[in-house]
Amino acid sequence: MNKIEGGLETVRGFRFSSISCGIRYENRLDYTIIASDAPCNASAVFTKNKIYAAPVKICRERISRPVNAILINATNANACTGDEGYSNAAILTADIAAKLGTDKESILMASTGIIGRQLPLEKMLKSHDLLLKGLAREKGSSVAEAIMTTDTVPKARAAKFTCANREYTIAGVAKGSGMIAPDMATLLSFIITDASVGKNDLDKIFKGAVDKTFNSITIDGDTSTNDTAIILSPVSDAPITGGKDLQEFTEALEYILSELAEMLMFDGEGVTKVVRVNVTGAADNREAVLIAKSVSNSLLVKTAIFGNDPNWGRIACATGYSGAEVEERLLSIFIEDIALFLKGKTEDVDYSILSEILNRKSYNINIHIGIGKGEASILTSDLSYDYVRINAEYST
Amino acid sequence: MNKIEGGLETVRGFRFSSISCGIRYENRLDYTIIASDAPCNASAVFTKNKIYAAPVKICRERISRPVNAILINATNANACTGDEGYSNAAILTADIAAKLGTDKESILMASTGIIGRQLPLEKMLKSHDLLLKGLAREKGSSVAEAIMTTDTVPKARAAKFTCANREYTIAGVAKGSGMIAPDMATLLSFIITDASVGKNDLDKIFKGAVDKTFNSITIDGDTSTNDTAIILSPVSDAPITGGKDLQEFTEALEYILSELAEMLMFDGEGVTKVVRVNVTGAADNREAVLIAKSVSNSLLVKTAIFGNDPNWGRIACATGYSGAEVEERLLSIFIEDIALFLKGKTEDVDYSILSEILNRKSYNINIHIGIGKGEASILTSDLSYDYVRINAEYST
Repeated sequence: MNKIEGGLETVRGFRFSSISCGIRYENRLDYTIIASDAPCNASAVFTKNKIYAAPVKICRERISRPVNAILINATNANACTGDEGYSNAAILTADIAAKLGTDKESILMASTGIIGRQLPLEKMLKSHDLLLKGLAREKGSSVAEAIMTTDTVPKARAAKFTCANREYTIAGVAKGSGMIAPDMATLLSFIITDASVGKNDLDKIFKGAVDKTFNSITIDGDTSTNDTAIILSPVSDAPITGGKDLQEFTEALEYILSELAEMLMFDGEGVTKVVRVNVTGAADNREAVLIAKSVSNSLLVKTAIFGNDPNWGRIACATGYSGAEVEERLLSIFIEDIALFLKGKTEDVDYSILSEILNRKSYNINIHIGIGKGEASILTSDLSYDYVRINAEYST
Repeated sequence: MNKIEGGLETVRGFRFSSISCGIRYENRLDYTIIASDAPCNASAVFTKNKIYAAPVKICRERISRPVNAILINATNANACTGDEGYSNAAILTADIAAKLGTDKESILMASTGIIGRQLPLEKMLKSHDLLLKGLAREKGSSVAEAIMTTDTVPKARAAKFTCANREYTIAGVAKGSGMIAPDMATLLSFIITDASVGKNDLDKIFKGAVDKTFNSITIDGDTSTNDTAIILSPVSDAPITGGKDLQEFTEALEYILSELAEMLMFDGEGVTKVVRVNVTGAADNREAVLIAKSVSNSLLVKTAIFGNDPNWGRIACATGYSGAEVEERLLSIFIEDIALFLKGKTEDVDYSILSEILNRKSYNINIHIGIGKGEASILTSDLSYDYVRINAEYST
């Protein structure tokens, strides 16, 4: 696998277009499409929130069928919009399908933005000719920009990999910024590849890669109504099979998703630091995840990270209320390789070295539970004044 | 029941003393004692955190025996301090017991402050003569002040009530400020009464009252290592019995605890607003609590409250990821009696009226799930710039 410059435009067989439709604001890209030249197998991971948006419902219904395009709008989530919201998404995708000459259920949709408002249906329908007229492979770079909400930078990554002596490309885009949590949060991500992978293999590999990457980051612990990550891979009579070749594909996919996940974190609302919380020695992996999430979501830990404060007592405290099995006399807490608390005892620490680490933009908090072999790792961020500012002002 | 002015000093049969021992800082009250003239029945509720402080361990061991005094220090939590921390708490309480001439296991202890540092044992032992010399009923007002950490005001309440034609007094103090969550958080509270209630009745009534008050508030969702709420009631051959008289006592106790809980909220770190989240119509009470906690702890909801932002979409979203049974088409969300979302449909709202409510220091968010009869109510707060400032700077 080799990383390459660029984004979606590096992948053969797809075209893109992005326009300023004026869905909520004028003069910003807010409506975009990813269209495949050939029908694709699609796999997806969606929010687990029981209140989920109309486009998520549409995608869930259509994900097992061949897919020709993904239609995406920003600035309006089309969530909590009931039957009318669902109908709007169905009408919009049917119109695109008719204009592309494809099956009407072969178009997926994703939305992000404010909850509880209906999409401006007529305005969006009227824009479809303009949207589709713009379709071109080189417009791939516009997609990452058109899906942004409070994101400050577009996020795209691409890589090449070789299977059975043939070179393939994979690329992805993502948007995030607020409501980022394990279990996906307001995260939209779209991955395309020119490598043909069978539907069953694609489902399994994509789910596994999302669990390791997007589902292992947290900014504010909130899980949104609209989370959607979709991968498209062209349908083929001779898909890539066999462990070794699929392994090449898996590695390339995991690279793309982990890069996008890290970009999401660093562009999180008000984020000044991204810290990895590694838990080892928990009773089992499930308990390790409980501990890593509890520490990652603790406001007191997150404000301490913001303040460069070596307050390991807050880490111990969040470990203790995680619900997992924890014993003080077995617990150890490290910043990088510096022990602050070792098997239940406070350690003397060289604060000048520690201070240098805490001032970095990124470092590891390592927690050893000392009970079993369970492991987990989650990327978290600090909680800054800017997080409060951005989120206190969002809808008004 | 009649509320009265004052705090612990209003209750007959107890004496108090508070000194500046210099445990972490000089020249501030940081060491205090509540001493009963007669042995007391004691009931308590402690943190559920698996990492709990040495004084919590001491209290758990002694709570079923008659209690003569509670020794309390601020500025050092004596948590994550291992055998030495436990031994220090045991030595301190044994020394107080010897000087008071009581059984050495009849002294409880509570601590609050930074985690992971040993108490200055010698300094504290040396201060005991001074501490006990000061014992006087009128010093009751000093206790609320001596237990403060980042609290900005001392918190005390008192009330009189009548059982079987006799008048009794009940009074309590509390400290909170950070790490306030359902399940008690860094909350110390001490309640005393001159009414004799048998141990079994006292346990049951106190637990029930704490569940309704202290365990139904949240500032930051963190649950501390040191939470302790204790009530002392003099042992008697003829305790108050009978539903009606115990009901008078229960009402007075609930009044004291609910007043203290509300004071804790308004004095929470960086709190500018206190909002009650009421959930009705959930599948059952347990699910209603899940929803109320999920909404109360959502950073996006809390920042919206700070920003006077009627962002009910975030409330719907937090309801959806609570884990409870929720259906969008049955869900309704109100600010006071103004419906923002009614059975799955967005309502047109008079924003001038809504804005007046959102600018209040306190209001109700009412969520109706429309599924069953489960109810819950939790007090939450906003998340402000000051919360971040206070907690980014606490230990350094």
